[in-house]
Amino acid sequence: MTASETSSIAIKQLGDLKKITIIGLGLISASWCYNIKKTLDVSICAYGRSKDRMLPGLELGLVDCITTDLQEAVYDADVIVVATPVQIMQSIFSQMTPFLKKGVIITDVGSVKGSVIKDAQVSLGSFLSNFVPGHPIAGSEKSGVTAFVKNLYLNKNVILTPIASTNKNAVEIIRQLWHVAGATVHILDPILHDRALAGSSHLPHLLSFILVHTLSNDQHRDLMFEFAAGGFRDFTRIAESDPTMWHDIFMTNKHALKELLQLFKSHCNLLENAIDTNDSSKVMNFLTLAKQEREYVAEKKGFNRKL
Amino acid sequence: MTASETSSIAIKQLGDLKKITIIGLGLISASWCYNIKKTLDVSICAYGRSKDRMLPGLELGLVDCITTDLQEAVYDADVIVVATPVQIMQSIFSQMTPFLKKGVIITDVGSVKGSVIKDAQVSLGSFLSNFVPGHPIAGSEKSGVTAFVKNLYLNKNVILTPIASTNKNAVEIIRQLWHVAGATVHILDPILHDRALAGSSHLPHLLSFILVHTLSNDQHRDLMFEFAAGGFRDFTRIAESDPTMWHDIFMTNKHALKELLQLFKSHCNLLENAIDTNDSSKVMNFLTLAKQEREYVAEKKGFNRKL
Repeated sequence: MTASETSSIAIKQLGDLKKITIIGLGLISASWCYNIKKTLDVSICAYGRSKDRMLPGLELGLVDCITTDLQEAVYDADVIVVATPVQIMQSIFSQMTPFLKKGVIITDVGSVKGSVIKDAQVSLGSFLSNFVPGHPIAGSEKSGVTAFVKNLYLNKNVILTPIASTNKNAVEIIRQLWHVAGATVHILDPILHDRALAGSSHLPHLLSFILVHTLSNDQHRDLMFEFAAGGFRDFTRIAESDPTMWHDIFMTNKHALKELLQLFKSHCNLLENAIDTNDSSKVMNFLTLAKQEREYVAEKKGFNRKL
Repeated sequence: MTASETSSIAIKQLGDLKKITIIGLGLISASWCYNIKKTLDVSICAYGRSKDRMLPGLELGLVDCITTDLQEAVYDADVIVVATPVQIMQSIFSQMTPFLKKGVIITDVGSVKGSVIKDAQVSLGSFLSNFVPGHPIAGSEKSGVTAFVKNLYLNKNVILTPIASTNKNAVEIIRQLWHVAGATVHILDPILHDRALAGSSHLPHLLSFILVHTLSNDQHRDLMFEFAAGGFRDFTRIAESDPTMWHDIFMTNKHALKELLQLFKSHCNLLENAIDTNDSSKVMNFLTLAKQEREYVAEKKGFNRKL
């Protein structure tokens, strides 16, 4: 670690933290604020386009101030958490950069990391080394500040994807903040992050949206919905997720997503052909492998304890 | 209703019922037995290939006898419930027909109705008019008698798909038996049933199996599973379902399923193209419609109360 690296951030430990700024107050950031305020004596200021929508956050004591003025929001901030849909981040980075305090640590909570890093490289200027790209693997199909969940991050994974130039102390401070919220922090290459999440999260969301869209447009829509049961309920829960957030994820992670969708289609054709040709053993092998793998993940991740 | 129709079944009301036979004791039939035994003074005999697997049903008091002898199982039965995977049903029908009591009522719990009706037409002979095709829209990714659920059918839908020759009193007795289990009974055309269920249940199961299969075979499988969270958990719960049961459903409902899978693929291409061409408004419209429709179904079906 070089001297300039260690000196380029303003705080060395959480106790030094005086002001945190949240850009975009919703389920993810409000749940984070709840945990931070519970543990640290720090002032949190939220920036957003609508005071009305942030007001519950103030009333619930999740934040100490709300403002629609970005300059005021980031003024003197020690840590800034950007929690907007990912396609807005470049504009936020550009707008706030002129007003940042030297040594501020910046992080984000976007579900795609490659595009956010590119945006930061374009727009954060000399603050790039203070930017710690992050992604909490937690959430809900609900959105908005009033949907905040007290234990949203308890025992959940958070992935940080620093690049070569990222300040190590900045990473450490962000790691500690997530630790305060109860999460386990992992460091991962951003490209690997985007490929892994395309499979475990983005593709299931895409398929869930498409399934609901397909049934909605079917001539037997009403009958299908009438007899929808537990399988449909769980499979489509994530189709209630925020369209803006998912629009941005699909758009910014389209290459990894497309690659996985092609693989999905080839496995789909495999099973479809086996069904068409009455190849019972191939169908049985396919379903049995899927069941075994799902049981393996469920056991490893403790899914059944959470259901 | 003709005289021969009314006279062709042995019992006129549930109180007349003395013996029920279950062919295939698993989650579905064991949960049904629990409710029937709780309310009616009736003897239930279970037939299966393995006494060991049925034994817990006897010990739990869900059934009064277990046997691997089909002739013994159906002897003097007033009602027979066939609860095997659907592709075994034709063989069961053929084997049991020589030993049936005149006037016995036969029903099944298969998830596909067209193929089961064809099997009954081929194999049940003069007992065809006493056969009431049925499908309880309830279940679990778990299987086996020990996975029985006391309130599995409470406020759940059961679809009966009688054909023109089906005895009306037989339908009424089966309706009443499902009513005892807490279910709401609907009468539906078997082709409509198979098309509706292909959309609301069979296609989601197929896609869930394929998604798990795709990730399992990916080079980044371990990382994807490591960071699998709530979305993946709910989307893939049904991929733990019984492979034999779902093999049979996919095989016997392949035409309706294939038709829906084609529609799914065309909606998939629509969204994929919109993402590829950065058509933001088309992507937003797609996702927004899906969200609205999912919210509509969730509200109508009370999904959120059950989660």
